[in-house]
Amino acid sequence: MAEDKKAKVAKAVKAPKLADPKEASIDLGTQELLARAQKLGIDTVFDRAVSMKPCAIGMQGICCKNCSMGPCRLPLPKGGIEGEDDRKGLCGATANTIAARNFIRMIAGGASAHSDHGRCVAEVFLSAARKETEAYQIKDTEKLLAIAPHLGVATTVEVDGETKDRDIDEIALEVGEVAMAEWGKPSGELLYMKRAPEALYEKWKKQGVLPRNIDREIVEIMHRTHMGVDQDYKNLMKQGTRAALADGWGGSMLATDLQDVLFGTPYPLQSEANLGIMKEDHVNIIVHGHEPVLSEILVAVAQSQEMIDYAKEKGAKGIQLGGICCTANELLQRHGIPTAATFLQQELAIITGACDAMVVDIQCIMQNLANVAKCFHTKLITTHPIAKMEQDNVIHIEFDEHHALEDAKRIVKMSIDNFANRGTDVVIPPYKTTQIAGFGVESIQYHLGGTFRGTYYTLNDNIINGRIRGIAGVVGCNNARTKHNDGHVRVVKELIKNDVIVLTTGCNAIACAMEGLLTPEAAAVHCGPGLAEICETVGIPPVLHLGSCVDNSRILLAATEVVKAGGLGNDICDLPVAGSAPEWMSEKAISIGHYFVASGVYTVFGVTLPTSGAPVFHDYISKEMENIYGGKWDLEVDPVKHAQLMIAHIDKKRKELGIDKARERVMMDMASRQALEA
Amino acid sequence: MAEDKKAKVAKAVKAPKLADPKEASIDLGTQELLARAQKLGIDTVFDRAVSMKPCAIGMQGICCKNCSMGPCRLPLPKGGIEGEDDRKGLCGATANTIAARNFIRMIAGGASAHSDHGRCVAEVFLSAARKETEAYQIKDTEKLLAIAPHLGVATTVEVDGETKDRDIDEIALEVGEVAMAEWGKPSGELLYMKRAPEALYEKWKKQGVLPRNIDREIVEIMHRTHMGVDQDYKNLMKQGTRAALADGWGGSMLATDLQDVLFGTPYPLQSEANLGIMKEDHVNIIVHGHEPVLSEILVAVAQSQEMIDYAKEKGAKGIQLGGICCTANELLQRHGIPTAATFLQQELAIITGACDAMVVDIQCIMQNLANVAKCFHTKLITTHPIAKMEQDNVIHIEFDEHHALEDAKRIVKMSIDNFANRGTDVVIPPYKTTQIAGFGVESIQYHLGGTFRGTYYTLNDNIINGRIRGIAGVVGCNNARTKHNDGHVRVVKELIKNDVIVLTTGCNAIACAMEGLLTPEAAAVHCGPGLAEICETVGIPPVLHLGSCVDNSRILLAATEVVKAGGLGNDICDLPVAGSAPEWMSEKAISIGHYFVASGVYTVFGVTLPTSGAPVFHDYISKEMENIYGGKWDLEVDPVKHAQLMIAHIDKKRKELGIDKARERVMMDMASRQALEA
Repeated sequence: MAEDKKAKVAKAVKAPKLADPKEASIDLGTQELLARAQKLGIDTVFDRAVSMKPCAIGMQGICCKNCSMGPCRLPLPKGGIEGEDDRKGLCGATANTIAARNFIRMIAGGASAHSDHGRCVAEVFLSAARKETEAYQIKDTEKLLAIAPHLGVATTVEVDGETKDRDIDEIALEVGEVAMAEWGKPSGELLYMKRAPEALYEKWKKQGVLPRNIDREIVEIMHRTHMGVDQDYKNLMKQGTRAALADGWGGSMLATDLQDVLFGTPYPLQSEANLGIMKEDHVNIIVHGHEPVLSEILVAVAQSQEMIDYAKEKGAKGIQLGGICCTANELLQRHGIPTAATFLQQELAIITGACDAMVVDIQCIMQNLANVAKCFHTKLITTHPIAKMEQDNVIHIEFDEHHALEDAKRIVKMSIDNFANRGTDVVIPPYKTTQIAGFGVESIQYHLGGTFRGTYYTLNDNIINGRIRGIAGVVGCNNARTKHNDGHVRVVKELIKNDVIVLTTGCNAIACAMEGLLTPEAAAVHCGPGLAEICETVGIPPVLHLGSCVDNSRILLAATEVVKAGGLGNDICDLPVAGSAPEWMSEKAISIGHYFVASGVYTVFGVTLPTSGAPVFHDYISKEMENIYGGKWDLEVDPVKHAQLMIAHIDKKRKELGIDKARERVMMDMASRQALEA
Repeated sequence: MAEDKKAKVAKAVKAPKLADPKEASIDLGTQELLARAQKLGIDTVFDRAVSMKPCAIGMQGICCKNCSMGPCRLPLPKGGIEGEDDRKGLCGATANTIAARNFIRMIAGGASAHSDHGRCVAEVFLSAARKETEAYQIKDTEKLLAIAPHLGVATTVEVDGETKDRDIDEIALEVGEVAMAEWGKPSGELLYMKRAPEALYEKWKKQGVLPRNIDREIVEIMHRTHMGVDQDYKNLMKQGTRAALADGWGGSMLATDLQDVLFGTPYPLQSEANLGIMKEDHVNIIVHGHEPVLSEILVAVAQSQEMIDYAKEKGAKGIQLGGICCTANELLQRHGIPTAATFLQQELAIITGACDAMVVDIQCIMQNLANVAKCFHTKLITTHPIAKMEQDNVIHIEFDEHHALEDAKRIVKMSIDNFANRGTDVVIPPYKTTQIAGFGVESIQYHLGGTFRGTYYTLNDNIINGRIRGIAGVVGCNNARTKHNDGHVRVVKELIKNDVIVLTTGCNAIACAMEGLLTPEAAAVHCGPGLAEICETVGIPPVLHLGSCVDNSRILLAATEVVKAGGLGNDICDLPVAGSAPEWMSEKAISIGHYFVASGVYTVFGVTLPTSGAPVFHDYISKEMENIYGGKWDLEVDPVKHAQLMIAHIDKKRKELGIDKARERVMMDMASRQALEA
């Protein structure tokens, strides 16, 4: 009897709490696959989010584990701090010091991820420029010529008093070498910083936050946050700023540019999104991660007749490639490869039972994929030397640019061979949407630029006349602590409803695609009259997909183009723009958020910010910082309020520019017109 | 009545728990000053350690806060893990992944601290080589000529078929430039790696852990530990190894070498230690931190007749400089400046009431110093741009090598002016000891080298014949979670009692000095007969002070010299040596510990290791790792057992070398001799 009771108790304790599929995601396919996983007894991140509570102290930024006298966990400031805030760690570190340390170590993590990605691309670029590899060539010479001057590389040469074009191979080689040096040069400053509006560059210079190179700023964060070094949150944030700028205007921007030169600059194209892109009768290869260096070759190999024939030989009708996270975005932008899933759906892609291989590179890959893959026939293949998995069912095929084609062929062949091992339990939810993706600084110019000036003239004109109220960059991850895609979609819908055009990247782009917002047709349904008119006239979606998370650098450059086109002030902080990451999760998001803030953008995050335990520090970044850089942080978990904060900021900027009245006139016009039509 | 009770409860809750001075430290002066602080109602780290418990999960290495879905706190493996260890974070990260991530991020923190220090020295060095500053000159040209070849810098030049010495300024300039490039060069490997024994270098090469440059390895740690990147603890540790080696054989070794060239290579000298070195009738200036660049100039200025006269004018009998932490060790080694205190005594130096100025640079500086300084007249002066303090009573005088003398004069003058502001409540505990410090690779060679071969011949000979059983490197911090200096002193005493000669740095060196172990006379009292005989013959202490924590690189080079001198194998892991950090606290200690392990040294830590929550990972670094690098980690909190583990390892190595019998013979000889004498 007592034994029975004990067993019951043990079972009660052991039975894991499960997520309610309807509460977990707004996506029907996700709900169905989550229910299926639960039925099969396979735990996913949705269930784990329910069964494991986050540490409240850590979440609020006031746990310090930077020395072994701790971890020191400061008391939570429940109901605020009365009187002087005398909380401190063993060394005396205040809540501000601890939260600032943690915050900039997050920047260090994020900036490292982006910049290391950029460096890897730079190495492949250099390899291609040196003709050491057949798999990669300098593809987009126009882009190469466009970026060369920013790296101080001449594109012409004087021969006998005549100006001639320089040999393109020579330019590529020099661009590669100069780019590689940006990570570690012993003196000077990052060359790309001067691409920013002059007023912004001068602001950074005055503040002493111009990065010296990329790596050094990250290393200095690690040093300053070491026990007993920097203990002034303002000074800590100064270094955080320097490293974040080295990410956005350095590592990330170089990643984007060099990828464009190697793989082609994206131009608008049509594709599809969501797990429904997987095909029961095809070999499904899902690529997941962030670095397109391998997957670019995988695309070529998977689309080769040789492999298609081989797949048919093995009983499949063909090969379906699909992407997750930013590897998805990279391949979508340049090749129209459909997007299979957002970050939170990665385990579910395997749970379809139709994933013959999941090929992962770096970042945002859940270790639990290996456990899920064990329950199915799926081959889980790691490919990057710096990202392996502990579990023994994971296959490591180390990718190297010098034998890229062989690696890719081996992977595709292995996937095809695995098609026969599929169980009969294939469940692919029948949901997918059409998306128009492939936007970039260049294509925005093409679509919204002026005919004569070739700049962002038309865009600016429509901002000034009020049809477009402002521009929002909405980006970032999913987070299992909030309802999947709900924040993304609701923030974006509220923005476009209010005539704010949205530039998107990362998992926000995928969420918007899944919701059908990346189509010109969405404009009529979801946009305010001004934006709807523009989208209709130009034939673009109200939400423009700019790519992966390193491609947030495209948003910086787009904003710079808007400044240059004139009429909207002379700095990014003058523009009616705002940034947002409604469902952020990774350290990269903090780095991105901060380089936006330091570039003058008001930036709102959802979910939580690891600053709430340190109110003075929180005020510093969410209020005082605006006086320094023109941008500031904010936190708002309610999606509609979140968007409204951004719109209020945009309206404030319109007023400062003296263009608030113009918009009122346009709105009146619209109203009159509608009245007439009625 | 109820109100009274409430007030009582409030008081009971508010009354901070206080440390028992006798339990807090083995040092009488520390006990007395702690009691004084408590009487004055000033809290110190000793009290805070009693009132704030560390987070048990974080302490055991299984809290992951690398993304905002967490912090995920895995359950503790109380009583071990039964069956499969299925604990995981939201992404599926296992205990091994989480602990390994945290461990190598600690290496990143530590390696950054040391290497950034090295870079700062390299910048001053280059400034001196370029004659841009009058305050610094190339002082030790012998050392310059010794290190130049390791950096590939020629010291001679061929002129008309004749070999001539190169101009020393030219060599210095090239050394400076090559050194600076080590932090960020885009290709190749760290030049100093080849200073290691060849067998060790080849081992690193085979394992793929030769650092490419210093910064990149740190940045790659931050990337790999980002959410969803490396999820294989062995692969994570591989990168940890690469970064730790970049610290020990890179950043730290360059720091040591360039400091020696700029400020002089240490040679043995006599000084004193403990807070008793402060003088009631002198202006007391305490320098604290790690980087000697400013404090070197402070020494010159404080010893100038101009300042001594000014101090006398202001009523003092002179100026007493004293050091804390590694700034202390640096100034002691090269100038005999007395050591005032270990890490844990820093607040107490102010509580004497006699500290007219505390001048801090970087690392291990408690933020609470500012709060303590507020209670006294002490001027607390921060000097480094990367290390400021939040509190408004802290004075920031930013030091720059280009106006070093002016900065130093301003600081010394401010300290002298402050002498008059002292209260009457001066309590300097009357305890201080004599110490012989200033050892290094060069001086060990001088004292224990052979007359003919100029190498470590005599040392090796005495290890082979068994008088010296082995060599221990005992280093590291204090930690408020253990009794101050107790672990340091007991580990070292147990070692020398068993004829193990000790090389010490950091706060272990200071603790040993305070205990009187850094004197030749200590040998007769504390050493086994073999070691006692050597110390007596050569006239050295049984514990040799090798400097600051960057100077742990001297231990690596000393071990390399022992290998070179012959007769004890051909790799560091063959030697009868062991490493220890009985009271470690900082991330630097983890980086140091790991570069020792990866260089082949069995290394035992006290206090705790952030690995116990992940038993498989712990086994990996404390068992399996020996098969890769010849060294491994261990944890032992009991100081005597801790030393005995090291001795057992030394004996194992003696046996493997076939020299275990020799020692038995020596011991027998001693016994016979003693029997005869009796």
